[in-house]
Amino acid sequence: MEPVFEFPLDLAKLSHESRVQRLHLQLRAAIVERRLPAGARLPSTRRVAQAYGVARNTVIAAYDLLMAEGFIVTRAGAAAEVVDLGMQANPSVRKRLPRLPAQPPAIDWRKAAPSTTHAHPTATRGFELGVPDHRWFPSDVWRRSLLHTTSFALAGAFGYPPAEGRPLLRAAIAQHVAYARAVVCDERNVIVTSGAQQAFDLLARVLVKRGQTKVAIENPGYPPLRAALLAAGAQLVPIPVDDEGLIVERLPTDTRIVCVTPSHQFPTGVALSLPRRRALLDFARRNAAVIVEDDYDGEFRYGTQPLDALQTLDRDAKVIYVGTFSKSLFPALRLGYVVAPTWLIAALTAAKQSADNGGNVALQEALARFILDGHLARYTRRMRKRYEARRDTLVRAIECELAAWLIAVPPGAGIHLYARFRDRRQAKRIVSLVDQHAIGAQPVSDFLVERERAAGTGIAFGFGCIDAEEIEASIAGLARALHRG
Amino acid sequence: MEPVFEFPLDLAKLSHESRVQRLHLQLRAAIVERRLPAGARLPSTRRVAQAYGVARNTVIAAYDLLMAEGFIVTRAGAAAEVVDLGMQANPSVRKRLPRLPAQPPAIDWRKAAPSTTHAHPTATRGFELGVPDHRWFPSDVWRRSLLHTTSFALAGAFGYPPAEGRPLLRAAIAQHVAYARAVVCDERNVIVTSGAQQAFDLLARVLVKRGQTKVAIENPGYPPLRAALLAAGAQLVPIPVDDEGLIVERLPTDTRIVCVTPSHQFPTGVALSLPRRRALLDFARRNAAVIVEDDYDGEFRYGTQPLDALQTLDRDAKVIYVGTFSKSLFPALRLGYVVAPTWLIAALTAAKQSADNGGNVALQEALARFILDGHLARYTRRMRKRYEARRDTLVRAIECELAAWLIAVPPGAGIHLYARFRDRRQAKRIVSLVDQHAIGAQPVSDFLVERERAAGTGIAFGFGCIDAEEIEASIAGLARALHRG
Repeated sequence: MEPVFEFPLDLAKLSHESRVQRLHLQLRAAIVERRLPAGARLPSTRRVAQAYGVARNTVIAAYDLLMAEGFIVTRAGAAAEVVDLGMQANPSVRKRLPRLPAQPPAIDWRKAAPSTTHAHPTATRGFELGVPDHRWFPSDVWRRSLLHTTSFALAGAFGYPPAEGRPLLRAAIAQHVAYARAVVCDERNVIVTSGAQQAFDLLARVLVKRGQTKVAIENPGYPPLRAALLAAGAQLVPIPVDDEGLIVERLPTDTRIVCVTPSHQFPTGVALSLPRRRALLDFARRNAAVIVEDDYDGEFRYGTQPLDALQTLDRDAKVIYVGTFSKSLFPALRLGYVVAPTWLIAALTAAKQSADNGGNVALQEALARFILDGHLARYTRRMRKRYEARRDTLVRAIECELAAWLIAVPPGAGIHLYARFRDRRQAKRIVSLVDQHAIGAQPVSDFLVERERAAGTGIAFGFGCIDAEEIEASIAGLARALHRG
Repeated sequence: MEPVFEFPLDLAKLSHESRVQRLHLQLRAAIVERRLPAGARLPSTRRVAQAYGVARNTVIAAYDLLMAEGFIVTRAGAAAEVVDLGMQANPSVRKRLPRLPAQPPAIDWRKAAPSTTHAHPTATRGFELGVPDHRWFPSDVWRRSLLHTTSFALAGAFGYPPAEGRPLLRAAIAQHVAYARAVVCDERNVIVTSGAQQAFDLLARVLVKRGQTKVAIENPGYPPLRAALLAAGAQLVPIPVDDEGLIVERLPTDTRIVCVTPSHQFPTGVALSLPRRRALLDFARRNAAVIVEDDYDGEFRYGTQPLDALQTLDRDAKVIYVGTFSKSLFPALRLGYVVAPTWLIAALTAAKQSADNGGNVALQEALARFILDGHLARYTRRMRKRYEARRDTLVRAIECELAAWLIAVPPGAGIHLYARFRDRRQAKRIVSLVDQHAIGAQPVSDFLVERERAAGTGIAFGFGCIDAEEIEASIAGLARALHRG
């Protein structure tokens, strides 16, 4: 019997249920990868059943699933048809876009056409920093979690949410940080935010007294954190970073807030050493300062004796821990959290209420279920192995190919690696060739407060969304270009 | 043949596809309403097929849909089983909640147990203000929209979103406001926010110069707006409201920002009259002020000649229009928007970036599809009729039963109604009986800036989530109590 699809379908030796699932997944993959293009008509269930030697109800059930998920549509008396998934290219959707008036009204702001800038291009490329790989993300499981929560049976599914977050998600996050980062806390100390960025913003609003509060930041460091602090009127005090992380002895004693990335300094990748951690906690105690610990990718720890979160060492309610699901899951989720001492909870809740009155209920509930059912832990564990292999590939490639120019500093955690210039006089040339051959990688000077420093001390390579082969090919290409002189 | 479910299933005279759908929906409703309780085992597909005289593949397909949606689970060799949907009551989920250490660490903040307060109770009750009815919300359509967007085929489904919102949603909102509110704008003038509250917050951050900017607000007015303005350091100037809305001539000439609810004043329900609208736009032009138009429930307009949005009259790029889906859809969605003049877009985008780096991609894309496919317009149209009937019931009930105490002011839009005291000396007594007999209704004094004024001028009754029978019964009960003495 002639196959009815132009790609292989393997349905032998399976139960009815498994066959439905297999057929469903294979057809869906074909649609997603456009082997079954938009508008394609699916053969009748009878024809598919005959062609692959399965019962017709198997095919019907698989088609029903595709229909429920919106991958195909059926119209009375016609064959099932593949829906267009890429909205950009869909003329039927385009048609429905707003028809602007033929005569624009005679006022300037409607005539002008500002081009809005996106700080983050949505396409991930090469060595881009801070972008995780989503190809192994269990989309089906996530979809099912989300389906649960959009059921009208969920209490509070429609009304105003609690500003501090759904109780179940706060409990799930408390469990997650205990498991993944040894941060032991009560769920009442968790505030759910719209990504780590909102955590920084709320903390800045609550803790910074405009024009008065000195806030120490790492230099180089994470620019969006600086933006949130400056918006709140903070006096920024940039503190340099060395092989042990933030140089604690450089902190002015009138610093009220110290922002650090102890697990994996951004962007140099070093971990804050244990003596420095102790010194920093001492500093906070002696000078009535608080510490904001940004643990953006600490879930991915490599090696045998990883350092726990700084918060774990805190005995004085001085450390405010900020986490995000942007690296452990994906950035488009826009969910993060603060684990804060009790004295801060009421103020943070009020700030969140004033800022946006709480977050979407379905997403929070779906994430809670995803965590409590163990999917986050499982996914993180799996991705850690992949990232570790990539880190090792990258370290090896730099050591083999670029030893004359760069010294790799293997990170103990996270999804980017820092490589120091062997000779700073070569920096400018290396940076310009990196721009061409290791797309996405950035000189750490991009993250310095003083922008005039041309090159800084090295290059940061993200390895979140790049395969081993591409790592090797890119580094080899960069090496050839450097050799060419 | 004996029925296998204890509730009626009606599957006669339908095509296979319709039967699958009917069976699927009826079983799902039974699960959601707990007629099929958690843990219940479903009869075999063969038995159901025999009992209801349908083909077995019909039953299989319906079960598959329930499984895909997470309502039932199947295990090898066992019957399909109903999943527990109410997380609260599910012991198997409870078990997985964080196990806190037996010995709490010896630091105070973990010992303390603050009770966090929720400004919005999630249970909707009686005459509560600003809470729409969600019982007719097309959850299935919404779920399908969400399913689409959680597919990995969607461009940008995982990466960082554009801070100002997904292009498709901005276009959909531009279409929606043009259709529903005659607000004609370019999609580039739309910024997507996390509810109207974030719109207020971003506008306050961008427009208010701390300690210097005078901002006029309606008095009585919406307290969370005041909170956002105060957080940004605004000097608030409360302006009284009469039968024509905000009394424009009371605005001090050095007012830089005027915040108004022209369609349906919150909480007195009056519409800003056309002369006042003209005067307000004049004021802004002459005094270099801007106007923030909060159109929180203007989608629900009653009567034949409704006033368009104030923004529609604006010819000077002075009006910033704020909308929300909290009333037209539901609050838990947490999606709103600003339609701003071009001169403001870059600053608002930067503020949004600093505040939370953009919103969840799947939700934005799902809402865009929901709007572009016409579901929002259809749902709004349907709900407008229901709300109008309730408004009429409430007006009639107040006029018939409470004429001695209250004068109803029928609103031309929105989901709450204001009733004025006939005799202010009775105010205290009426308010105390309202608290007992018309739960959720609030004296407008609750929304005054000067809290010392004991009673204000009347009572606001929400009719978003209350049925006609309950309206009549509650008002009758209130009347009996007032008559008693």
